[in-house]
Amino acid sequence: MPEPRVLRAAVVGAGYWGPNLARNFAASERWELAAVCDLDAARAARVARASGGADVETSLDALLARDDVDAVAIATPARTHHAIAMAALRAGKHVVVEKPLAADAASADEMIAEARERGLVLMTDHTYCYTPAVLKIRELIEAGELGEILYVDSVRINLGLVQPDVDVFWDLAPHDLSIIDFVLPGGLRPRSVAAHGGDPLGAGKACVGYLFLPLAGGAVVNVHVNWLSPTKIRRIAIGGSRRTLVWDDLNPQQRLSVYDRGVDLDQVGAVPADDRRAATVSYRLGDTWSPALPEREALGQMVAELASAIHEGRAPLTDGRAGRRVLGVLEAASASLAAGGALVAPEQDRELEITA
Amino acid sequence: MPEPRVLRAAVVGAGYWGPNLARNFAASERWELAAVCDLDAARAARVARASGGADVETSLDALLARDDVDAVAIATPARTHHAIAMAALRAGKHVVVEKPLAADAASADEMIAEARERGLVLMTDHTYCYTPAVLKIRELIEAGELGEILYVDSVRINLGLVQPDVDVFWDLAPHDLSIIDFVLPGGLRPRSVAAHGGDPLGAGKACVGYLFLPLAGGAVVNVHVNWLSPTKIRRIAIGGSRRTLVWDDLNPQQRLSVYDRGVDLDQVGAVPADDRRAATVSYRLGDTWSPALPEREALGQMVAELASAIHEGRAPLTDGRAGRRVLGVLEAASASLAAGGALVAPEQDRELEITA
Amino acid sequence: MPEPRVLRAAVVGAGYWGPNLARNFAASERWELAAVCDLDAARAARVARASGGADVETSLDALLARDDVDAVAIATPARTHHAIAMAALRAGKHVVVEKPLAADAASADEMIAEARERGLVLMTDHTYCYTPAVLKIRELIEAGELGEILYVDSVRINLGLVQPDVDVFWDLAPHDLSIIDFVLPGGLRPRSVAAHGGDPLGAGKACVGYLFLPLAGGAVVNVHVNWLSPTKIRRIAIGGSRRTLVWDDLNPQQRLSVYDRGVDLDQVGAVPADDRRAATVSYRLGDTWSPALPEREALGQMVAELASAIHEGRAPLTDGRAGRRVLGVLEAASASLAAGGALVAPEQDRELEITA
Amino acid sequence: MPEPRVLRAAVVGAGYWGPNLARNFAASERWELAAVCDLDAARAARVARASGGADVETSLDALLARDDVDAVAIATPARTHHAIAMAALRAGKHVVVEKPLAADAASADEMIAEARERGLVLMTDHTYCYTPAVLKIRELIEAGELGEILYVDSVRINLGLVQPDVDVFWDLAPHDLSIIDFVLPGGLRPRSVAAHGGDPLGAGKACVGYLFLPLAGGAVVNVHVNWLSPTKIRRIAIGGSRRTLVWDDLNPQQRLSVYDRGVDLDQVGAVPADDRRAATVSYRLGDTWSPALPEREALGQMVAELASAIHEGRAPLTDGRAGRRVLGVLEAASASLAAGGALVAPEQDRELEITA
Repeated sequence: MPEPRVLRAAVVGAGYWGPNLARNFAASERWELAAVCDLDAARAARVARASGGADVETSLDALLARDDVDAVAIATPARTHHAIAMAALRAGKHVVVEKPLAADAASADEMIAEARERGLVLMTDHTYCYTPAVLKIRELIEAGELGEILYVDSVRINLGLVQPDVDVFWDLAPHDLSIIDFVLPGGLRPRSVAAHGGDPLGAGKACVGYLFLPLAGGAVVNVHVNWLSPTKIRRIAIGGSRRTLVWDDLNPQQRLSVYDRGVDLDQVGAVPADDRRAATVSYRLGDTWSPALPEREALGQMVAELASAIHEGRAPLTDGRAGRRVLGVLEAASASLAAGGALVAPEQDRELEITA
Repeated sequence: MPEPRVLRAAVVGAGYWGPNLARNFAASERWELAAVCDLDAARAARVARASGGADVETSLDALLARDDVDAVAIATPARTHHAIAMAALRAGKHVVVEKPLAADAASADEMIAEARERGLVLMTDHTYCYTPAVLKIRELIEAGELGEILYVDSVRINLGLVQPDVDVFWDLAPHDLSIIDFVLPGGLRPRSVAAHGGDPLGAGKACVGYLFLPLAGGAVVNVHVNWLSPTKIRRIAIGGSRRTLVWDDLNPQQRLSVYDRGVDLDQVGAVPADDRRAATVSYRLGDTWSPALPEREALGQMVAELASAIHEGRAPLTDGRAGRRVLGVLEAASASLAAGGALVAPEQDRELEITA
Repeated sequence: MPEPRVLRAAVVGAGYWGPNLARNFAASERWELAAVCDLDAARAARVARASGGADVETSLDALLARDDVDAVAIATPARTHHAIAMAALRAGKHVVVEKPLAADAASADEMIAEARERGLVLMTDHTYCYTPAVLKIRELIEAGELGEILYVDSVRINLGLVQPDVDVFWDLAPHDLSIIDFVLPGGLRPRSVAAHGGDPLGAGKACVGYLFLPLAGGAVVNVHVNWLSPTKIRRIAIGGSRRTLVWDDLNPQQRLSVYDRGVDLDQVGAVPADDRRAATVSYRLGDTWSPALPEREALGQMVAELASAIHEGRAPLTDGRAGRRVLGVLEAASASLAAGGALVAPEQDRELEITA
Repeated sequence: MPEPRVLRAAVVGAGYWGPNLARNFAASERWELAAVCDLDAARAARVARASGGADVETSLDALLARDDVDAVAIATPARTHHAIAMAALRAGKHVVVEKPLAADAASADEMIAEARERGLVLMTDHTYCYTPAVLKIRELIEAGELGEILYVDSVRINLGLVQPDVDVFWDLAPHDLSIIDFVLPGGLRPRSVAAHGGDPLGAGKACVGYLFLPLAGGAVVNVHVNWLSPTKIRRIAIGGSRRTLVWDDLNPQQRLSVYDRGVDLDQVGAVPADDRRAATVSYRLGDTWSPALPEREALGQMVAELASAIHEGRAPLTDGRAGRRVLGVLEAASASLAAGGALVAPEQDRELEITA
């Protein structure tokens, strides 16, 4: 098999996240960093220099006109993602977009359709999905180690700055939702979403929030996000019919624990479904196991996956539709919040209708 | 001040909880254990003997006819609480009832009214409220150490037996609700209750549950209960405008932590209320403090409080109305669950209407 | 196989530990509690009654003259162990002695010899060895799961009462030493012992102590005991050539952790022994595993083991010689302490000389 | 007060630690980075560029001949520290040396004498001492918050690479010793040192080690270092007569805990010293307190302290003699190890004799 050609990337936006993208493209064997583009030339130049040298562009049009750029990584404010991504796709570039994929699901649908029509890769930079822990969770679930998923309970709380433009759901929950979308077989497709928020400081937006997402089949997902907690918790528990997994991101000595404990489903399964309610439920107390995890930077894995997707002509692990599903849940959450916590079904993505 | 007279208690029900009550009445300087009453004479005799000796009664009527019994402690199944308590009150006995106070809020209202009319003490045995940690939390909040309460987040999860008669809300949440009721000034009086549950095993009842309770003034309470978790968590965080308290019941070396961190409310307060949304919010990072706690058995404190309430002719710390408020929330939770998670206002207790 | 005869035990000493022994003999299917013996008849009667009824004896001679007593459990002050045990053995009784086995190693040697000559069981009640965690550690080491033992590091610290008669080594280290003796194949037989102590309060005895015990073959054992620590730690790490085990007795959710990490010994072994110093050492980062442990009372296991040893005519797992080895290390530690921390070889037990 | 002149630093050695020093000098308001010096010009150039630009020197003589360099930071292998530092001092430069200060205490004595004679600052880069946690520990002890120091117990264990040139004492213990030296009033001046080591792999050097250091006045210091531990612990407990402090460097949410628990010394003090052994000792169980710590890079604090020391003409907090004391303990440890763990008194530093 011939060595795949080294691809050339341009980073658009030299603010907070752009330098990280630039550094990882520059460090990857699969990529060359062709250019850094920002209206502020000095800022772009600093990022280009710190990444070992790349062209500086201040015009998006000029950048997209270059034929030596294979992919564009967009790290600009969310409201500009759609316009820049559409322009890049129309110029024939593959595109990876910092999360959130777009300001709203409708914009995301257009981006997905555009990429699809042009045969280009559209990727969402759900960075957390490429950490060794989350990749391992996905692998374990895919291999059936947890059995059928029964519940997911995610907590992401800390003392955070009250954001001027978004509430705590849009600020923090995208991390949880993108991870859950990544590890659940088939992605996160809740039947509906209920959101409850608290604004006890009178900040004009929810600072404490709870999302409840019933899935088809009876499993439930809950996400608790909080800007007002002096303690920091980053914990996702995934209960399965065979085993339960807990990810504690703040415990570097044991990030993942897999508990071989729970209800003995075989026994429940042994009785006819309609008698199940009467069945005596027994519990199993088995060992705990914590898999070793490699030390690898997530963003390096992300840019490698982008290269592989382009070379293999396939959707990346976190494609546009994954970003779209997360947006769909967040929009449903906002609608639920406005409706006093009522269950709101997320609008399906257009692509799904097309392919279904 | 004369030494208060030693009171005489009878325990009704010699099953799971009765022996604990009997032992604590027997061990208290304020009490004598007069009798243990159970239909099963052998069982009653065992409990009486293990408590150092007391009369055995197998007839409730006979017990209540005795004039050497001041108070009756009821530790029978919940559905019998109302009938036994009403009989005891009518016989002029003070009454303490194992939680839940009654099978439903209407029964509780009758019990409260009966005790009120007769000038007798009606107490709910919310044992957890008398642990050193919870007493300290109440004291700190009362003293203003936390400031205004902003949120309460309670988690009570473990591998629990699926109960035949109740769901996870009725099994586990009474602990959280009674504690929160005890420590919040004025008790737990949510404007409404939303309950979301999951039954991923098809057990016929919720095994995973979330309660959301908005309070007047913008604070929010959340309770997460779960029978399917292989890890055990007993944690209540109470966020305040001045400080935040975390109770971790499974960390005996540091059960309570008080964090002097959070939003600088003075600054928020300095701007007019309608500009608050625009105010720049700043954060304060102060010390953490963990108060020393005495080692004392909660149930011993409970029976002492019952004695004090009787002697002083006042309501005990966990009176009938506290038990009634918890029942009210649980009933609203069940109603919300049946209504797909819609917010349901708990019915006010009758007493409140009378006194208001 | 016929059901083994139920044995009859007498407990001598109704103070702190005697009631626990009495309760466990009474609860065991293998035993009947025949008598409780104490100079204080009332105290003995209380213990007998709480254990469901047994004879009360106030004379040791009378007790030992009874032919319906198979075994005597001695829970009197340490300085009396030798005399009582010798009398019991001479009366043909099997004997189990609360730790320490005797006040000094010479006395222990006599007790061992006496039991040996008479074909009776002499057991040391090293209770901790019968906890599920320690039994599992022994089993894992015996099965070779840890490989060759490289080091043992034991920490037992807390705020403890300064004892009037013993220093911190004799108060706390017997726990660690008896456990280490139990799990190491062949028992704890250090080449020598170095002890360093601190008496920063001027209490007249060491309140902070460190034991260092080099074993044959290059492994080392260290024990840290401390009465002055406000934090409580009970932790033993056992490093092996294949895996390392950590026992954290204060973490009920994960008492045992087995780490599949360490130096890759195969590689070291691949080079000739004299080149080993030059070998490049590589590290292996594998999974962590925490075995499930049953919930069982240690003392119940101990009395069952005593019954089995008597029936099978074999030495119990914690026999007199195990108690003797612990005493030998403690005596060497005291000698080292007196010699400014010099390495002192423990005197071998007489039995060893006889059998060798 | 006039703004102190900005000083100019040169970094000698562009290997592992040099780039960190260069970056911090470049980032400090008190310093300019004048030059980076290394025999490997390309390596020096990389470090100079990454620090925002500085001259590159490949000759130490040429560097020291420059009159625009105030201070030289030495980050070369330990065996070269003496020669480079002596040359720099003779050239009139202030000097800071990466730990260890020199290869042996005698060399360190010469460096200290040279700096003293020339009125120049000689500093040891004990970086850890400038972390917020260690600075706070020093401050608390200095303010008397812990009372009289009774014991120090330090544990620094993890899976570490077996070093080719040094044993585990020289590799890891300098961190503990420099910290303890920094926080103890008057520095770490043990009466003697006992070292016990284990080499269970046959690596030709101790891989597991224990240091015991009795101090004047009865306090004791113990340091446990281990290259073979799969778990990582970085913990120092400092027991005082008033309070005890525990530093857990791997718990970012609560690095420092101050326990107001321990023996009630007032009571012990109330009895005459010779009766103290008979005194009944009582224990006090008070609160725990965890001071907030700022987030600041230690090396930035270190270079600021160097600037202040130069400007104020005083010894820096971690001066040459601090480095010398640590070397003295390590040399005594090696001597003790060679003598089978016997207590060895560290040779006093020459300076002490001169000044005493």
